[in-house]
Amino acid sequence: MSVILHDLCGADPSRRFSPYCWRVRMALAHKGIPHEALPWRFTEKATIADAGTDKVPVLRHDGRTVHESWTILEYLEDHWPGVPSLFGGEGGRALARFVNTWSDAVVAPAIAKMVVSDIPGVLAPEDAAYFVQSREKRFGMALAEVTAGRDAAVEAFRRDLHPLRMVLRERPWLSGTTAGAADYIAFGPLQWARCVSAFPLLTPDDPVHAWRGRLLDAFGGMARNAPAEDLT
Amino acid sequence: MSVILHDLCGADPSRRFSPYCWRVRMALAHKGIPHEALPWRFTEKATIADAGTDKVPVLRHDGRTVHESWTILEYLEDHWPGVPSLFGGEGGRALARFVNTWSDAVVAPAIAKMVVSDIPGVLAPEDAAYFVQSREKRFGMALAEVTAGRDAAVEAFRRDLHPLRMVLRERPWLSGTTAGAADYIAFGPLQWARCVSAFPLLTPDDPVHAWRGRLLDAFGGMARNAPAEDLT
Repeated sequence: MSVILHDLCGADPSRRFSPYCWRVRMALAHKGIPHEALPWRFTEKATIADAGTDKVPVLRHDGRTVHESWTILEYLEDHWPGVPSLFGGEGGRALARFVNTWSDAVVAPAIAKMVVSDIPGVLAPEDAAYFVQSREKRFGMALAEVTAGRDAAVEAFRRDLHPLRMVLRERPWLSGTTAGAADYIAFGPLQWARCVSAFPLLTPDDPVHAWRGRLLDAFGGMARNAPAEDLT
Repeated sequence: MSVILHDLCGADPSRRFSPYCWRVRMALAHKGIPHEALPWRFTEKATIADAGTDKVPVLRHDGRTVHESWTILEYLEDHWPGVPSLFGGEGGRALARFVNTWSDAVVAPAIAKMVVSDIPGVLAPEDAAYFVQSREKRFGMALAEVTAGRDAAVEAFRRDLHPLRMVLRERPWLSGTTAGAADYIAFGPLQWARCVSAFPLLTPDDPVHAWRGRLLDAFGGMARNAPAEDLT
């Protein structure tokens, strides 16, 4: 009945930086599920091949493998149904999916264009070569070119966060009076950026910055104490 | 115990077009709450002054007034708590608020810049004068200038809908297996556009278009049968 998470890491195995793995790690902590988060690198695809994917997060539980962060969150809620809930009921589960699509379609791509060139610097050499080649192919340009305009791009990014900010002006958590899956989903890409790049995405006076701080402090400072570059 | 909604109308009192009033009308229909939706015009501020606001929707129930569409949705859920629920539990209520901020911060302003110049044409003369003056002041330019670039703007708008589209590729309703408050909240601005402007916001092959069609058909075609300009 042990739970294992294959969790993306850098050259330093304690540098965990995948936005999708962070969503799962926060959810595991939220539910207090004992687990082992094993370091995994981009070039270790053989380790997770039995899960039918070449990407982490991959969760192993009870002889099964589960992959893709949203699917894992649902799996955790269904297999550890007691409190604390991740979703706060079926309506919350349904709309956490919208937070997930918003985070994946709006937030994560904008962050990628601001931090992707900083990622090779935290990777082991063989991973760095793989990463640069695959991402330069995806973007169709050198990674330094992708992030060259980030001083201007960050302004648009901060505007894109406005729907989240409006909620956080009213209450401490996106999920309501306590943190939940929606918070961890939105937090994942921000923690990704923080772990790989010193480029500051948020200004200290932003309610999103304060909310990120509360999530960094959650679970005994689990996310704050992780190796990171942006310490604002 | 009667319920009255003050509902924005055009020169034709049956043309109801406020995005915020549509959210409430769909929610009233969802819960099957008998009510009267009285036509109200921009220049009839005295009629709702006792509610402490100069904007509709205003709901009257049991000697109370409630205003602002989100507050009214919560009021309906709390005072008619039986099924069908608008939110599907507390987690759903919390995240419907995020759908509301997304709709208000991203969707509605983008639509305004594509349809605002068409609105005076559906208004009574005294309302049209008020509307043009107040909106030209807000935008700092003639309304025709605001919408001049809409053929290009609609492409960005359709991209902005992507988080909603991604959910609707997976299931029929934003709220899950049945429609709920989140659907009505996101639908409001689209129905606003449809009621005042023939400018087509959505392409027929878009899952958002099909979802809008399901909401138009809901409750006996209530929204589809309302006077409108965009009949696509």
